[in-house]
Amino acid sequence: MARTPSLSGFPEWLPQERVVEQHVLDTLRRVFELHGFGSIETRAVETVGQLLRKGEIDKEVYGLSRLQDDEDAAGKQDPNALALHFDLTVPFARYVVENAGYLAFPFRRYQMQKVWRGERPQEGRAREFTQADIDVVGDGELPFRYDVEIVLVIAEALSALPIPEFRLRVNNRKLSEGFYRGIGLEDTAGVLRSIDKLEKIGAAKVAELLQSELGATPEQAEAALKLATIQTLDTSFVEQVRALGVEHPLLEEGLTELEQVVAAASLRAPGKVMADLSIARGLDYYTGTVVETVLVGHEQLGSICSGGRYESLATKGNRTFPGVGLSIGVTRLVSRILSQEFATASRSVPTAVLVALNDDESWAGAQDVAAQLRSRGIATEVAAKAEKFGKQIKYADRRGIPFVWFTDADGAHQVKDIRSGDQVAADPALWSPAAEDLRPQVIARLAD
Amino acid sequence: MARTPSLSGFPEWLPQERVVEQHVLDTLRRVFELHGFGSIETRAVETVGQLLRKGEIDKEVYGLSRLQDDEDAAGKQDPNALALHFDLTVPFARYVVENAGYLAFPFRRYQMQKVWRGERPQEGRAREFTQADIDVVGDGELPFRYDVEIVLVIAEALSALPIPEFRLRVNNRKLSEGFYRGIGLEDTAGVLRSIDKLEKIGAAKVAELLQSELGATPEQAEAALKLATIQTLDTSFVEQVRALGVEHPLLEEGLTELEQVVAAASLRAPGKVMADLSIARGLDYYTGTVVETVLVGHEQLGSICSGGRYESLATKGNRTFPGVGLSIGVTRLVSRILSQEFATASRSVPTAVLVALNDDESWAGAQDVAAQLRSRGIATEVAAKAEKFGKQIKYADRRGIPFVWFTDADGAHQVKDIRSGDQVAADPALWSPAAEDLRPQVIARLAD
Repeated sequence: MARTPSLSGFPEWLPQERVVEQHVLDTLRRVFELHGFGSIETRAVETVGQLLRKGEIDKEVYGLSRLQDDEDAAGKQDPNALALHFDLTVPFARYVVENAGYLAFPFRRYQMQKVWRGERPQEGRAREFTQADIDVVGDGELPFRYDVEIVLVIAEALSALPIPEFRLRVNNRKLSEGFYRGIGLEDTAGVLRSIDKLEKIGAAKVAELLQSELGATPEQAEAALKLATIQTLDTSFVEQVRALGVEHPLLEEGLTELEQVVAAASLRAPGKVMADLSIARGLDYYTGTVVETVLVGHEQLGSICSGGRYESLATKGNRTFPGVGLSIGVTRLVSRILSQEFATASRSVPTAVLVALNDDESWAGAQDVAAQLRSRGIATEVAAKAEKFGKQIKYADRRGIPFVWFTDADGAHQVKDIRSGDQVAADPALWSPAAEDLRPQVIARLAD
Repeated sequence: MARTPSLSGFPEWLPQERVVEQHVLDTLRRVFELHGFGSIETRAVETVGQLLRKGEIDKEVYGLSRLQDDEDAAGKQDPNALALHFDLTVPFARYVVENAGYLAFPFRRYQMQKVWRGERPQEGRAREFTQADIDVVGDGELPFRYDVEIVLVIAEALSALPIPEFRLRVNNRKLSEGFYRGIGLEDTAGVLRSIDKLEKIGAAKVAELLQSELGATPEQAEAALKLATIQTLDTSFVEQVRALGVEHPLLEEGLTELEQVVAAASLRAPGKVMADLSIARGLDYYTGTVVETVLVGHEQLGSICSGGRYESLATKGNRTFPGVGLSIGVTRLVSRILSQEFATASRSVPTAVLVALNDDESWAGAQDVAAQLRSRGIATEVAAKAEKFGKQIKYADRRGIPFVWFTDADGAHQVKDIRSGDQVAADPALWSPAAEDLRPQVIARLAD
């Protein structure tokens, strides 16, 4: 991992590192499917019109043009021009609208794909990276309970990964907006955008912003900031908000919603989910629950899982599709797992056994041995050349293959563990390696 | 599958179809890993210089430019401009060169990723599609035996898929080129390109081409065409070629190599591999074994798996990396599986059980039941609302979930198979669905 990619912002993993990434993806898939989320993939390409349908966005988009096309790629402003998706939410919304007639709602899906952003790369921020999203989408309505559920699913999924302690920081837009209205600040989007800068620029500067840009009084700014300091691992945030003495129906609604999330989480995923009233996600179109997630001790990495509730993920005629979803930054997580060695792969190859050759004619017999082993799920290679046994063992060693299989001229079989040197008689129809040697293991350095 | 994609050439699958695609990808991964191929992924993006490093190509390439970039995407001719990869071989060659110091050779990898081509879409030809490649790459040398092995691996992998009979059509460039030289045709690349058109334009037109464009005599054209008619499922092609009375050392070498492939295949994968001396792959840079694969009865679909041997897949200074590899057109195969209903998914959701709610307060208890089921690998959803049982059952039915779980006020559990209506008492710590109901099954319509 001292290697730097040959194109900056486009990380690529070595085989041993890829084993770790596969483990992360397989684990997420397993947990998502156990919770009834089915897989879909959308094309990597959308029209520019689709990508920009909500107006200007803060993401840099890669446009596409055919190299062999004679015309200039002047089509940049053409809404039918093609571009690479920058997240999985916009394509998913389009997919729901296009296929609404074929989907059973509430529709639950996970989606693990690459996305692209033409931004200046920096630590934790790549130009090509993998996201793993889960969403539940309703037709017309979507009970709030899905907000609770999706937070629990993500807490379970992240708990299954070889990463340090994490914390979902949950807030609710209704709570924040109701509070701002209750203190007389009507440009709630503007307040959210300012509060979003809290970690970056600090409370004093945010207070200044609120006054200079949004016309807040010092008291209003102070109240908004006070709300943002509330962080609790249980439902005591409700009392703390009430103590601020602000009243608004939207605030009440948000308090009740957030209370449900935190109450369920403190029971089912204790310590993993926190009410954090500074979470704003000011640039996105959420309408209720909002989530960011930090790795404890690695906060500067940024959020490893974000999302929330959209009252209208998509619309089709007069149909509205509300949704709630969360998106895990897989590449950001895997980069950190690798760079900090939170986990390592026990070997880089799937192969458990190399079948050695006595002589060039024994290749067919070696293939028979290999076929028997593979039929029982043991990944096996056959040596390509009848080199000296020492050389064949060295080949296995170099590739990290733990066992070498020998068949002598009389057809007697032996298998050698090249790490210990132990060699025993074995039957290709019966022998199996120890469970931990069957496949590459991903070994977490951290105790849970 | 009557649906047409909203962007032509960019197919997307419904959840039920995606189950079939996942089955194909999972099956390929399993077989590849059993044979010791490890996974890697390369970035989707290469520099234009890298993609075009072998000169002009016949594939249309999508170039990238940042939409927000003020300058025109005039960088089309700039070799450092970015573009999407059109196959997985070119990126893999670059990966090998960049990471040679970290890889153990012969390096075996599989790679299953999307690729993009800006071509006019037609049946069996998309602009975005998934390929599944396996390659073995050596450092300096790579024993021929890997050519034999890789053909056997692919035959095994394709046999594991829910597709009709297929046939790998194998030839060897040395054989063809040696033969052409032996009859006095020195522009072997030109002859290969003409022979490549045999299926499209017929023998008479190819004979004309050979004479008009390559200056062949009628006898030379006839001999070249005679070679191309030889097709055998066993090694009898060797005698048929010898009967043509042509001699050349390269021809002998090619005959010996192809004989090894076909001999091993007729033993280990009978009927699946054929020597077909018309296979040319004239536009690619192969130097020995060449392979195309047809679905029998679906030849007009084109090749579903192609590849071969490169004496120099990549070079680094004075190091040469020879390779042999094959690439399966996953999207082409999956499209055909779906359109011809070679296989269907038993359901579109992973969920086996829906836990119903008695009343709104029973949600937490229902989550406990679900957690117990999930801990034993049973995909479970919990109803979001305590609607009438009939409505909750209808929800399960609409989503294709086979079982609904009920817990009465006394805590007694029952599970109902909503297909048969059977309802039995059950313990969440012990009950399991039948194996075929545990996960969505992909059911092949075709007997093997």
